[in-house]
Amino acid sequence: MAKVVMLRRLGGPEVLQFEDVRIEDPREGEVRIRVQAIGLNRSEAMFRAGRYPVQPQLPTRIGYEASGVIEAVGPGVAVWKAGDAVCVIPNYRLGTYGVWAEQAIVPAASLVAAPPGLSMIEAASIWMQYFTALAIIEGAQATLDDYVVIRAASSSVGLAAIQLANWAGAVSIAATRTSAKREALQKLGAQHVVATEEVDYVAEIQRITNGKGARIVFDPVGGPFVEKLAESMSPRGILFIYGGLSEQATPYPHWQSAFKGLSIRGWVASEIWNHPQRFERHKTIILQGLARGKLKPVIARTFPLDEIVEANRYLESNQQVGKIVVTVQ
Amino acid sequence: MAKVVMLRRLGGPEVLQFEDVRIEDPREGEVRIRVQAIGLNRSEAMFRAGRYPVQPQLPTRIGYEASGVIEAVGPGVAVWKAGDAVCVIPNYRLGTYGVWAEQAIVPAASLVAAPPGLSMIEAASIWMQYFTALAIIEGAQATLDDYVVIRAASSSVGLAAIQLANWAGAVSIAATRTSAKREALQKLGAQHVVATEEVDYVAEIQRITNGKGARIVFDPVGGPFVEKLAESMSPRGILFIYGGLSEQATPYPHWQSAFKGLSIRGWVASEIWNHPQRFERHKTIILQGLARGKLKPVIARTFPLDEIVEANRYLESNQQVGKIVVTVQ
Repeated sequence: MAKVVMLRRLGGPEVLQFEDVRIEDPREGEVRIRVQAIGLNRSEAMFRAGRYPVQPQLPTRIGYEASGVIEAVGPGVAVWKAGDAVCVIPNYRLGTYGVWAEQAIVPAASLVAAPPGLSMIEAASIWMQYFTALAIIEGAQATLDDYVVIRAASSSVGLAAIQLANWAGAVSIAATRTSAKREALQKLGAQHVVATEEVDYVAEIQRITNGKGARIVFDPVGGPFVEKLAESMSPRGILFIYGGLSEQATPYPHWQSAFKGLSIRGWVASEIWNHPQRFERHKTIILQGLARGKLKPVIARTFPLDEIVEANRYLESNQQVGKIVVTVQ
Repeated sequence: MAKVVMLRRLGGPEVLQFEDVRIEDPREGEVRIRVQAIGLNRSEAMFRAGRYPVQPQLPTRIGYEASGVIEAVGPGVAVWKAGDAVCVIPNYRLGTYGVWAEQAIVPAASLVAAPPGLSMIEAASIWMQYFTALAIIEGAQATLDDYVVIRAASSSVGLAAIQLANWAGAVSIAATRTSAKREALQKLGAQHVVATEEVDYVAEIQRITNGKGARIVFDPVGGPFVEKLAESMSPRGILFIYGGLSEQATPYPHWQSAFKGLSIRGWVASEIWNHPQRFERHKTIILQGLARGKLKPVIARTFPLDEIVEANRYLESNQQVGKIVVTVQ
């Protein structure tokens, strides 16, 4: 029997319940893993609350990013064997499998060998953040003379984007609501930090970019501030909106977009991992970045599995800088 | 003395007044032309009404697209001479010059020789429409396996986009509000016509594209219908919004954009003509298209200059199919 987090109703963190479940044997194309660490994602919190585009089929297991060790492989799985240390890439639809548990069945197609040199806690944190942040490379070719504004910069994806922008030779500008995380962001690589609630955002970006504007903006929030983001961009800029954290509707910034030829661009990591060639290329980039020290996962805090409710509350408190990881045993 | 349309207050077509003005001599880099035909544009109507991003400095002349014959050239103008038949490309800021007149001063940098084989009426109609519609080539590389939806398809820019999409080997789909203009649009090259107020738009696009969706959408309207446009698009599609005709705000179609990686892209023709290389390339494409019969301007109706008010009313009535041209003398 294994302890498994089960969702029987939608709502806040308190709806998460533990159940003792006998984990089935892996079927064709699946493996069973003993989970060692779980990376938490905003999408899971939205799924739990019923605010995700995919509605949960209750009751459901939950969670799709983890590290662990393979216990058993199903028919047709040739690449993996029991004892392998692996990461689970969150490339399947939320709710079809669930890794918030001591043991879990996952698709073999979602596995990557745990990268050398990383702890299992770090190994549970890397794939969603780097695959998502690679938008600035894959979708906008960030390069030497670019300014890249990263909103919600202290999130795991935000920090991943700072690292990727710096690696690509661009100037990373962290946008964060207040000055509270300024020093932390600077230590973690942000070349500039703009506290959006404390300064005239557009003027500040103009100052930092010497009037050029930011060619790339990477934003998980949306909402009315998108008008300001657009105003601070250079001609033919690309504004990625990769999440919908704002409670307010996102306006399309018409005139700014028209006169500067801006693109407002949706992005989800599945755009990469649903395409085998892009997936392999990005996986290689990420592994090289980790090996060469260009990418370094930032763990905000760990919680034991028993405290999954507290871990979810912490995720939604916006206090963290980096990834929240839940450890098992 | 020349008859000149003057704007002394903002408002509907009735605010347009004629005044007899002695047209000055051309200064450095300018020429004076005797206007023969004037192409009307939506941007001029918005400017007149005070709904354009550039506010008129009253009183002001108005109008920026025309054909005519050069009467005099200013200092430093070497390429042109009196007697040349020319087009005025609307590549200057509205209100800085004004061609709704019998005679007008214009910048030499806005001139192109009147293309052979076109009447002066046609010559006054081509530049804004083709430069704008070239978005589908320059910004989205429309090609053989593409479906291109063109909203407000019976406008001059819409018809230009149909011609360009067909020339590029793509499938043109005209979106128009009702069936009233269906036959006209088919005759003018639309491979499919969708009456957006009469059918389930998304289902109809799915049917036409065999479930693939449109990769390119070209829309001067914006507003809430953008959600439907996004829903009917294929992954990595590009939705150009090149005008703001809707009275309602344009929402950003967040989830559609995220899951399909759509780009919502602003576009104005100045994105091309403010860049010398793009300008030359597009000018050449347009002249070749005209010469080879791939592009053919469609004149909805002509009005004499005396009826400039009626011509403006007709522009805003949405009855036209093609360009409205005002003739002088």
